[in-house]
Amino acid sequence: MALMTKDQYLASLRGLDHWVYIQGEKVRSVPDHPISAPPAMAMAETYRRAEIGEMKPLFTARSHLTGETINRFTHIQHSVEDLVSKILMLREMGRETACCFQRCAGLDCLNTLYAVTFDTDRKFGTRYHDRFTEFLRFVQTHDLVSAACMTDTKGDRSLPPSRQPDRDQYVHMVAEKKGGMIVRGAKLHITGGVNSHELLVVPTRKLTEEDRDYAVAFAVPADTKGVKLIYGRQPSDTRRLEAGRADVGNFSYGGCEAMVVFDDVFVPEERIFMKGEYPMAAQLVELFAAHHRASYGGCKVGVGDVLIGASAALAEVQGTDRASHVKDKLAEMVHLNETLHAAAIASASKGFSTPSGAYAVDALLANVCKLSVTRFPFEIARLAQDIAGGILVTMPSLNDREDPEIGPYLKKYLVGKEGTDTEKRMRLLRLIENITLGTGAVSYLTESIHGAGSPQAQKIMITRLADLQSAKQYAFRLCGL
Amino acid sequence: MALMTKDQYLASLRGLDHWVYIQGEKVRSVPDHPISAPPAMAMAETYRRAEIGEMKPLFTARSHLTGETINRFTHIQHSVEDLVSKILMLREMGRETACCFQRCAGLDCLNTLYAVTFDTDRKFGTRYHDRFTEFLRFVQTHDLVSAACMTDTKGDRSLPPSRQPDRDQYVHMVAEKKGGMIVRGAKLHITGGVNSHELLVVPTRKLTEEDRDYAVAFAVPADTKGVKLIYGRQPSDTRRLEAGRADVGNFSYGGCEAMVVFDDVFVPEERIFMKGEYPMAAQLVELFAAHHRASYGGCKVGVGDVLIGASAALAEVQGTDRASHVKDKLAEMVHLNETLHAAAIASASKGFSTPSGAYAVDALLANVCKLSVTRFPFEIARLAQDIAGGILVTMPSLNDREDPEIGPYLKKYLVGKEGTDTEKRMRLLRLIENITLGTGAVSYLTESIHGAGSPQAQKIMITRLADLQSAKQYAFRLCGL
Amino acid sequence: MALMTKDQYLASLRGLDHWVYIQGEKVRSVPDHPISAPPAMAMAETYRRAEIGEMKPLFTARSHLTGETINRFTHIQHSVEDLVSKILMLREMGRETACCFQRCAGLDCLNTLYAVTFDTDRKFGTRYHDRFTEFLRFVQTHDLVSAACMTDTKGDRSLPPSRQPDRDQYVHMVAEKKGGMIVRGAKLHITGGVNSHELLVVPTRKLTEEDRDYAVAFAVPADTKGVKLIYGRQPSDTRRLEAGRADVGNFSYGGCEAMVVFDDVFVPEERIFMKGEYPMAAQLVELFAAHHRASYGGCKVGVGDVLIGASAALAEVQGTDRASHVKDKLAEMVHLNETLHAAAIASASKGFSTPSGAYAVDALLANVCKLSVTRFPFEIARLAQDIAGGILVTMPSLNDREDPEIGPYLKKYLVGKEGTDTEKRMRLLRLIENITLGTGAVSYLTESIHGAGSPQAQKIMITRLADLQSAKQYAFRLCGL
Amino acid sequence: MALMTKDQYLASLRGLDHWVYIQGEKVRSVPDHPISAPPAMAMAETYRRAEIGEMKPLFTARSHLTGETINRFTHIQHSVEDLVSKILMLREMGRETACCFQRCAGLDCLNTLYAVTFDTDRKFGTRYHDRFTEFLRFVQTHDLVSAACMTDTKGDRSLPPSRQPDRDQYVHMVAEKKGGMIVRGAKLHITGGVNSHELLVVPTRKLTEEDRDYAVAFAVPADTKGVKLIYGRQPSDTRRLEAGRADVGNFSYGGCEAMVVFDDVFVPEERIFMKGEYPMAAQLVELFAAHHRASYGGCKVGVGDVLIGASAALAEVQGTDRASHVKDKLAEMVHLNETLHAAAIASASKGFSTPSGAYAVDALLANVCKLSVTRFPFEIARLAQDIAGGILVTMPSLNDREDPEIGPYLKKYLVGKEGTDTEKRMRLLRLIENITLGTGAVSYLTESIHGAGSPQAQKIMITRLADLQSAKQYAFRLCGL
Repeated sequence: MALMTKDQYLASLRGLDHWVYIQGEKVRSVPDHPISAPPAMAMAETYRRAEIGEMKPLFTARSHLTGETINRFTHIQHSVEDLVSKILMLREMGRETACCFQRCAGLDCLNTLYAVTFDTDRKFGTRYHDRFTEFLRFVQTHDLVSAACMTDTKGDRSLPPSRQPDRDQYVHMVAEKKGGMIVRGAKLHITGGVNSHELLVVPTRKLTEEDRDYAVAFAVPADTKGVKLIYGRQPSDTRRLEAGRADVGNFSYGGCEAMVVFDDVFVPEERIFMKGEYPMAAQLVELFAAHHRASYGGCKVGVGDVLIGASAALAEVQGTDRASHVKDKLAEMVHLNETLHAAAIASASKGFSTPSGAYAVDALLANVCKLSVTRFPFEIARLAQDIAGGILVTMPSLNDREDPEIGPYLKKYLVGKEGTDTEKRMRLLRLIENITLGTGAVSYLTESIHGAGSPQAQKIMITRLADLQSAKQYAFRLCGL
Repeated sequence: MALMTKDQYLASLRGLDHWVYIQGEKVRSVPDHPISAPPAMAMAETYRRAEIGEMKPLFTARSHLTGETINRFTHIQHSVEDLVSKILMLREMGRETACCFQRCAGLDCLNTLYAVTFDTDRKFGTRYHDRFTEFLRFVQTHDLVSAACMTDTKGDRSLPPSRQPDRDQYVHMVAEKKGGMIVRGAKLHITGGVNSHELLVVPTRKLTEEDRDYAVAFAVPADTKGVKLIYGRQPSDTRRLEAGRADVGNFSYGGCEAMVVFDDVFVPEERIFMKGEYPMAAQLVELFAAHHRASYGGCKVGVGDVLIGASAALAEVQGTDRASHVKDKLAEMVHLNETLHAAAIASASKGFSTPSGAYAVDALLANVCKLSVTRFPFEIARLAQDIAGGILVTMPSLNDREDPEIGPYLKKYLVGKEGTDTEKRMRLLRLIENITLGTGAVSYLTESIHGAGSPQAQKIMITRLADLQSAKQYAFRLCGL
Repeated sequence: MALMTKDQYLASLRGLDHWVYIQGEKVRSVPDHPISAPPAMAMAETYRRAEIGEMKPLFTARSHLTGETINRFTHIQHSVEDLVSKILMLREMGRETACCFQRCAGLDCLNTLYAVTFDTDRKFGTRYHDRFTEFLRFVQTHDLVSAACMTDTKGDRSLPPSRQPDRDQYVHMVAEKKGGMIVRGAKLHITGGVNSHELLVVPTRKLTEEDRDYAVAFAVPADTKGVKLIYGRQPSDTRRLEAGRADVGNFSYGGCEAMVVFDDVFVPEERIFMKGEYPMAAQLVELFAAHHRASYGGCKVGVGDVLIGASAALAEVQGTDRASHVKDKLAEMVHLNETLHAAAIASASKGFSTPSGAYAVDALLANVCKLSVTRFPFEIARLAQDIAGGILVTMPSLNDREDPEIGPYLKKYLVGKEGTDTEKRMRLLRLIENITLGTGAVSYLTESIHGAGSPQAQKIMITRLADLQSAKQYAFRLCGL
Repeated sequence: MALMTKDQYLASLRGLDHWVYIQGEKVRSVPDHPISAPPAMAMAETYRRAEIGEMKPLFTARSHLTGETINRFTHIQHSVEDLVSKILMLREMGRETACCFQRCAGLDCLNTLYAVTFDTDRKFGTRYHDRFTEFLRFVQTHDLVSAACMTDTKGDRSLPPSRQPDRDQYVHMVAEKKGGMIVRGAKLHITGGVNSHELLVVPTRKLTEEDRDYAVAFAVPADTKGVKLIYGRQPSDTRRLEAGRADVGNFSYGGCEAMVVFDDVFVPEERIFMKGEYPMAAQLVELFAAHHRASYGGCKVGVGDVLIGASAALAEVQGTDRASHVKDKLAEMVHLNETLHAAAIASASKGFSTPSGAYAVDALLANVCKLSVTRFPFEIARLAQDIAGGILVTMPSLNDREDPEIGPYLKKYLVGKEGTDTEKRMRLLRLIENITLGTGAVSYLTESIHGAGSPQAQKIMITRLADLQSAKQYAFRLCGL
């Protein structure tokens, strides 16, 4: 079939035999719970836009395995154009949903494992690449979502995995079994974990020989026995439970993260893509990081587009759009937003083939992209709040508009420029609140710092990747040394 | 009596015959509703700290009217020391509550009206100063909270009050009545409006002769007929309604703003402090702005202290406190925070007596202080989130710790450095979430932009107050012109 | 011949029959005057690197007119690869010279006129494109430098050209003559004007019908009668006149700008590329601006490389390279520098064909690139000075090392880490001084603000090019409007 | 006499029997050499303004030793008012000279030694305080300049003084002698060293028992045998040697630093203020640093005033003063400049008495002040260059205005708004060039980073002085721990 429709995707989610814990509640059908529905709908958009319409060319690609048209979210990139298209697709999704739509980490992880299993085989004489290709073919053919599970719980950060007092603080093999292995541990911040068909587990850091048991990569269906998904809270998440969801800001979409516990889960051999080849862990982490750090110059920029649009629209409603300082702030927001995008595009533009044939982005520029992402959205959000005005956080509930006693006051006193109704103003304000202080801020702000690695991780990579030696030589020559 | 205890204050609030609308609900006893209790408790702290203990000297003063010991929140500042003490008191309150404790705008407004009524009388031969002094004596003697009501709804911002299609977009006198006047309109963003005994209403902008009816200043009890208080929503406000309030972050305190509607309210003559003297409006606004912009270098700095403390404590729990980049980020947070404080202290240090004897801060430095406040808390918040890690926004509910199925996973996998329990870590994370993405962010971030006037208002004042003429002369002399 | 050698270029400069005024001195042979030699040598590097060696592929291209191998500095870009190669070539030149090497504005102007003359002909039925192509063929065949002359003196900036009290404040046609026209006016900031064979003159702003006489574009040899080149001063420029040039910092290279006066200069018909077609002026200015603003993400980044290299080398010499704050500062410098580069690469990556076949960069990203260039080099320079230490500006002359009395003190007391000699340290310091406070700072700092248009010009273009309308639509949809 | 006139000061300088080395030249009379005259004139202004006129109250004080009116530059501060007055005096001097006027480090060092000798005596039973008081009385009575000599040459920065391969890399006692001691070493960056009567030498870092010989503080006349002053170069310093000094920018003033070599200099006992009491070195360094870091919120702010004034005046001349972005940039410059000032004033406002009776500033705020000083002047300078335009660095020499051939072109084409002559414009541009890229930039930019300690030194102090322990307690309480 290769392409699933949005509705088929939602049905497939409902068909999963997994249990998700949402604030103590055991939820089985994720798209039907008001808290988890918006994330499911955001993910579903990745299907809808590949179905039909003008975005189909951007959201689909030709599988290098089968030659079939597949969703680009399952595609192994084989050219600079592919790398660029991914960034453009992510930006488009960001614009459409104004949240984390959760499917890019899995995509980046597929591309990483494709390249790394190839290199592992060459180095260790193993046969992971064929296995992984088989898995990939399965994902592409059924158009599945595979969630990347990387960040371990880490325990004491000053100790490596094998020296932790509690050895389970990093996911690891606890036993070999006939036809597979048993794994234990937990992964944090698993974006879209509750909306995914498959969980794709990889190491989170460089490993040494002592950590051999921690050098595991594998995939298991999300409803595998022993897997537990514990849903994370977000600011203002329960507004989705309120009457009419009047104050949610973003009516259709949202992101979600979960803690994924692997409580002695069995992984069959054909789903194991690394088992003990610890020297490959560092390469895997760096390649994934490069792919994923570039991704942030797509999705976050799309959310930025929405925030800029909402601010511009609100300025019109409130009658401040002609003020020179407002125009200047909007220009600054665009400038910062496009600077993020430019770095992602540039990292793709300087992409290159790995030995497997899969393309990688320029790692220095991808890290540069992400490091700016840890900064600029905060400034863009600040400027949006500046344009919005204090009413952003002092405004009563939109439901109060319907109240017979106080509704008339709201309608009278919260007008903007003549002719604009208060509802338009209030909804735009709630959207800006959502992105800068609500559920949307999880993805637009905090995740912009920590997703795909924290700022310090980027600084370390920039230091490592910068060619300071030749820079010194230029300097020496110029000052006559 | 002059000093009320915290409990007396809460009792007095319960005694108010007003109706507050909280998300469609009509609430009478504000301290007893879970949404509005934390703001009442924050305000109550201004009483508790004047009662006893080491803070009493800072939180009390000697009334220049009665010679009695009064709460400094009702004191007219008569020296540089008074101005400095106010800033220090606000910082202390910020530290104690990590939110907007709501009593400073009223204080700044009392000081403003004290000076401006004096000048009005001198210019117009009126008798407002005596009236106001009488009101002040009442406030001091009964240790009341008076909420400053300044910002009008403004309608079309390109038009002055008298030219608005809807003339009620600015509070104004609609009729003179025997022994007083009738006023109509609404004021926005009224901090602590629902926790106050008195509403102190002043104009929000420069007025011209045409706007004469809008040149009104007065005080009315909060439970006056025709007054309606509509409570504003805040991000994550309903976490206060959840079981055990486990995820509120800040367990005791919160800020609140309300929209205050004056639906043909009668103001008796002895409570009117301006009526038609439109040329005084600009001076009133500027003096209030100066006082209040300096205040932000107190309260927000106190909240900053808490955020710095929470980040430092969390870094220890998570075992990252020795990392050089973490130490650098904490130093930067302190640096930014103290820079805000320094500007407030400096504006007080350069304070001077107005003709009334009340002291005013240096207006240029007060504006400089506030303009930095519109920027630095966002950077401090970003750094706090950087130190906190992604778990800040992906963490399950604290209630999940008690769940028999998933609680054990949380306790096992969310540990920090050996020996620290997960609860400490999770509570610190929730506090940081509260201040940077929750109810606390209303005050720490958005209100830091817009409270006491938006950044552009500060830029305009800085331009006006800067002595560019003499700066040019210095330049001319130096380049030989 | 198509490719000139470096020596042939210098000989050709010596052969020019022009007079350049350097601080009151009439200089004929520019490469032989100590002040103007370094700029000539910087320009000469554009020839040397196309001659032989590993850079030849980057510095040469295949002419689309003749099929011959030409210097890329005379090439009309016909693909995304061409656009990217230009940026990479400029960065390489920046690294090699650490100054403005002066040949890119001409290149960008050739590309602009190639496209605009084509469009002009289509719109006005004129024949400029053939003429210009002929001129281009001449430039390519003889490998000439053509200086772009754009910025007029502007007089009163609030008035258009035709309303200036002195009509000569913008270059304009003063008379038509048989076989050509007479022009008058002056152009400012003409980079490399004194090192160029040809002067390529274009309008500097949008023009209206009234300004028809100002709508002129043409080329004249630099030694045409009536042309006067007045050399601009730079900080520390006369260190080049001192004994041994010990303190110049950059021993071989430098940039230069000149004021170019056109005192009734005759332009023959075949060298006229616009004459009165005023509606084309705006398009020309915008296209040139886009090309040239992207260029800054090449050349300035190369200078940044040198500054980073010098700082890293100096930190080693001074024994501070292991300090975490120094490592952090170097990483930050690289980050900022690469962010500039990324925007230029991205603008090229999104390049497209104009009707003429010549490629244009993405204008939004080019403006975004340049706006960051107006900011980041100042921060990079500040960080370089931070790493360098105060000795950067308190160090005695390098010549003092040879002084019998004080030389020994310098050699003893200005050592760095054991084993490094003081000369290495002092020379690296002088290089950093040159780039951040000396002749190099002209190009690295001030020109980064104003070259290719000032920040406000970029803000205006960003506002115009940003697609706020569709951004608003995304926002409306998401908040349910 | 207590107060010297400006002329007496200059005469006293001419009377010094010292030799200063300026670029290899041995100069005896510093005020008469064109390179060193402007620094002497800047210092002389500290005398002139105490002589007469409206500034006399600010520039003089009453000696606590003699009761006489003395120059405030020799005064021991004994109150908050004294501390504030010092900051205001320094700002005034910065405005008047737009350079480093060189007398504040000595003042800060006098205040430091006054307090530290007192504490040393209490701790070690020594008699330094009386000795120092005697020296101070001498300085006050004769109104002398005493240059603070602190920064050692440091050699290998990873080693303490006593472990350096060359033990002379820190100034130290090499022998005790009857009635005194012999010292050797060199001090760097000695501001005003060549314009001073006395050299006041103190340790530059914390010392241990091993470093006992390095724990020396003393004063010697500047023309003592064995002292060598080697003058540092500055960007564009030799413009002072050019005809008419047309391009100097700042016509009267400049700063200067020198390397001061102590080649076995004898120090008589009564001039020794520390000899071996190594535990006092850290306290001395910290106290001096606090005083001096606050000073930067005076002097640099004064230079900022000039830069703001020059930019505002130039905008008028060039006809851009009405542009909203120019107004915004000027407001931002003022904002940043006043933020620096505010921190200095606040550090003074929170000043306190040391056991000696001399007042100290709040060290945390002083460090906060200085850390901002390492940043904001660069942004102010960037904004000034933005307002100035590219002509700042492409403008020919002012002398060219007099050239018969090219002068008329300059006069015609460099006009600004109608009615302004080119000379005014050119001179203002040269002044801005001076402060941002010339001799003035030494003090305004680089010295703002490194003077009184580098940014990292401030970060370390901020970390140490911040009360993180109580900040954590506030956080714990709020989140219920």
